[in-house]
Amino acid sequence: MDDDAARTGTAEALAWLDAHYAAMPPVAALQLAPARMHGEWLQLSAPLAANVNDKGCAFGGSLVSLMTLAGWGLVTLRMREAGLRGDVFVAETQVRYRAPLYAELQAQARAAAGGDWQAFAGELRGNGRAAIHVDARVLLPEGGDATRATSRYVAIATG
Amino acid sequence: MDDDAARTGTAEALAWLDAHYAAMPPVAALQLAPARMHGEWLQLSAPLAANVNDKGCAFGGSLVSLMTLAGWGLVTLRMREAGLRGDVFVAETQVRYRAPLYAELQAQARAAAGGDWQAFAGELRGNGRAAIHVDARVLLPEGGDATRATSRYVAIATG
Repeated sequence: MDDDAARTGTAEALAWLDAHYAAMPPVAALQLAPARMHGEWLQLSAPLAANVNDKGCAFGGSLVSLMTLAGWGLVTLRMREAGLRGDVFVAETQVRYRAPLYAELQAQARAAAGGDWQAFAGELRGNGRAAIHVDARVLLPEGGDATRATSRYVAIATG
Repeated sequence: MDDDAARTGTAEALAWLDAHYAAMPPVAALQLAPARMHGEWLQLSAPLAANVNDKGCAFGGSLVSLMTLAGWGLVTLRMREAGLRGDVFVAETQVRYRAPLYAELQAQARAAAGGDWQAFAGELRGNGRAAIHVDARVLLPEGGDATRATSRYVAIATG
């Protein structure tokens, strides 16, 4: 797929993201379903069976992986939507595991309060580097969150 | 292997831990080498090839998974060493990604400053529940750390 097809929330952009995820061996092991947008949230899902721990609930490492990938994907799509190219890195993450999850993993990510995608793109364009905070969560089927995280992502322009 | 064979740092305890890890599908995907003790640190290693991201370095999710498993394993072994049985959960984690890692993943975990295994065991024995903070890191081959984390683990007695 052509790089320029990547636009946040379009089917082409999400298909590009799915292909990007699938090319990473540790991500392939998570068995992600296709990425979707829910309003401002980018959502990634994965089956419990591939991500289960010794207690029959979702493995903490998989929960963090899904939230990290959702945030990374969101930042990457927004960057590309602004016509920019760069490498996106996660710099730090704070995770709270709130309740065990005994169902499919559904992770969502969006800009944290105060996060401004236009300012992010402007900074990346002007300085070659920009950072943004992203909130992520994994949903419980009965409502509420199994896990919450806040991460800082850094993008470095590549041209 | 008999449960009572699990003693921190003994070959039997580490083999028990390895078998426990291998039984979890998302952990099997990490391709862990056998667990080892280095002084106070429990060390887990995994090949880069199974844990590589789109930039050719270690995937953040795998780094967190290894650090979380090392911490979880350490708490579990110390609990069992004290003659106690329980479920060990990770409750929260703060991660800092400091430098990209282009080599084998080597994660280590030990009690955080002020962490006292005897107090932990006493609390678990007396209250049926105990918490402890654990520091973890992933080593760079040239020295220093690729990633650092601090986590809080909770153990709940099961008999």
